[in-house]
Amino acid sequence: MSSQTKSELQEVRDGVEIELAQFMRDQQSYLQSISTELNPVSQALSSFLLDSGKRLRPLFAYAGLTSAGASLSPATTKAISSLELLQACALIHDDLMDGSDTRRGKPSIHRHFESIHVQDELEGFAPAYGLASAVLLGDLALVWSNQLLNNSGISTEELQRVLPIFDEMRVELMAGQFLDIHEQTQKNTDLARSMKIARYKSGKYTIERPLHMGAVLSHNSTPELLHALSNYGLPLGEAFQFRDDLLGVFGDPSVTGKPAGDDLREGKRTALIAMTDTRCTDAMREESRKYFGKNDLDENGVAILQEMIVSTGAKTELEKLIDELTERAMKAVDNPVIADGARETLIELATIATRRSM
Amino acid sequence: MSSQTKSELQEVRDGVEIELAQFMRDQQSYLQSISTELNPVSQALSSFLLDSGKRLRPLFAYAGLTSAGASLSPATTKAISSLELLQACALIHDDLMDGSDTRRGKPSIHRHFESIHVQDELEGFAPAYGLASAVLLGDLALVWSNQLLNNSGISTEELQRVLPIFDEMRVELMAGQFLDIHEQTQKNTDLARSMKIARYKSGKYTIERPLHMGAVLSHNSTPELLHALSNYGLPLGEAFQFRDDLLGVFGDPSVTGKPAGDDLREGKRTALIAMTDTRCTDAMREESRKYFGKNDLDENGVAILQEMIVSTGAKTELEKLIDELTERAMKAVDNPVIADGARETLIELATIATRRSM
Repeated sequence: MSSQTKSELQEVRDGVEIELAQFMRDQQSYLQSISTELNPVSQALSSFLLDSGKRLRPLFAYAGLTSAGASLSPATTKAISSLELLQACALIHDDLMDGSDTRRGKPSIHRHFESIHVQDELEGFAPAYGLASAVLLGDLALVWSNQLLNNSGISTEELQRVLPIFDEMRVELMAGQFLDIHEQTQKNTDLARSMKIARYKSGKYTIERPLHMGAVLSHNSTPELLHALSNYGLPLGEAFQFRDDLLGVFGDPSVTGKPAGDDLREGKRTALIAMTDTRCTDAMREESRKYFGKNDLDENGVAILQEMIVSTGAKTELEKLIDELTERAMKAVDNPVIADGARETLIELATIATRRSM
Repeated sequence: MSSQTKSELQEVRDGVEIELAQFMRDQQSYLQSISTELNPVSQALSSFLLDSGKRLRPLFAYAGLTSAGASLSPATTKAISSLELLQACALIHDDLMDGSDTRRGKPSIHRHFESIHVQDELEGFAPAYGLASAVLLGDLALVWSNQLLNNSGISTEELQRVLPIFDEMRVELMAGQFLDIHEQTQKNTDLARSMKIARYKSGKYTIERPLHMGAVLSHNSTPELLHALSNYGLPLGEAFQFRDDLLGVFGDPSVTGKPAGDDLREGKRTALIAMTDTRCTDAMREESRKYFGKNDLDENGVAILQEMIVSTGAKTELEKLIDELTERAMKAVDNPVIADGARETLIELATIATRRSM
């Protein structure tokens, strides 16, 4: 990858950061005009949005835009930044549903408000205050995402092309999330079901739809271009999700911002777990029940499950699948409907999304 | 009130019902095309939306439209129906945050999914499944509300006028909800704070903004008309919230669909409670602490608290305030910028919103 592509992507990230910071300052003043009691709301959301984040979805939207031969304007920068607020909603609600204590190395939103309740010695039950705050902050992030897009300054025609994609993406996200929580309630694991969840939660929501949103922000986009971007985005999205599944089990806490083996503690039925399950002996399956999905799972238990996932060959199999899917995505870039200038960006993003930073 | 106005409002309700039913059928097919495991999602939301509901917000939007001298079209019927999906989100998340077991005489959404978990003997912890389902169904209702509005078929100009109001209304709703849950954590009650919550949760969200949305769906709306509708909507919205507060304490369960004295059990700090508190003797305040906000509050405890609210004169005071606010709203209807044909509708709606159906 050229250092030019790297600095180009960093420029997009910086632009998104500036727009989000400005938007949050405006919203903070607005909420303050209603009541200063709303300060913790805007502070928590600002810190959640601005302290970290890979800006993956805005970057894919940017890649979609450049694939159509267009370049970024102040208005389209605002429009693609809205995806970060949607992602904030998804993460805040996801942490609440999973009961996760941390996010990006800091307390999750429900835990943060639970702590405020304890520190300020408020009345009532601290976890209930944490829950309610996380529900509302997620809702607010969802609405703000929409507001930032609507007021981005893109033309009426652009907004009309973007909104149907934006709406469908959000429904797909919620559908994928529901299938995911439903999966955790099933008696057995199922690879086909796990693949479908990966497709909706990541293939479509994280990659394909942001690419499409970016593409239709240019007046040059064609059905052929959208199709080409799907051929790249869908396999890549699945590869991204599977990499995420591996990180949830084998990832370094200093990189993931989550405790080691967190997905094992939560009992998350991912494609990795489904692959392990089909390759397990009955004895191993029996043994794994002592550890998998146990709240108090310690380092030793994590190591036992990790060893099982490795020894059955599931880890290797999933890594092979990630490589194949990434390869397919990379090949799809080699398509004449994609503007020349976007190719290197798409290849760099594929590397970022599936990088083995464990 | 003329029977003509009554049948006119019923016609609007029927129109909204038809649009919501059609929209939910379409979404059901769409979700089914992703996975049949999503059937419980669309079923639960359909039943939540279609089995009951006063359709108050679409009716106010209708009144806004007719105040501008316009009449309803298929497109604007769809547009105002979107408010019912937003309200579904608010109620589903509200019940989850309050830990309410019932809504409109049926299990609340989190309890409904908790029951599915138990009945189907699913894996994991039933309340966690209920929580996650309610978070996601609320999110989905919020997104669908937006989708129904965006795809209603109103013109681009109409959509451009409506969206800023729609966005601000949703932020005000979330802000009002946060102030409400925050209020429950305070050491003391405060009438001014309770009034502000009523203003945001009801004055603006339930009445003023729907009126404005309806008005700008006509090309005849003027700043003067919006101002006149605010003069009617804001006091009426507060009156509506105070009536709701009274119903939460004195309401008949067969009418409210909630157990008697539910707000007392939840310890909801409403304007009614703030008024009672300032009029209480220290001994009464001490006594009330034994009952107020106790999960296991029985009929006897409810009666003791009700008696306190009556004997301090708080109930009478709040009823007087409701009458004054309603009177102010009624007077505001007598304004030449409001189209003649809309006056009776506005007056009838003021009666419906503040009716003493205890």
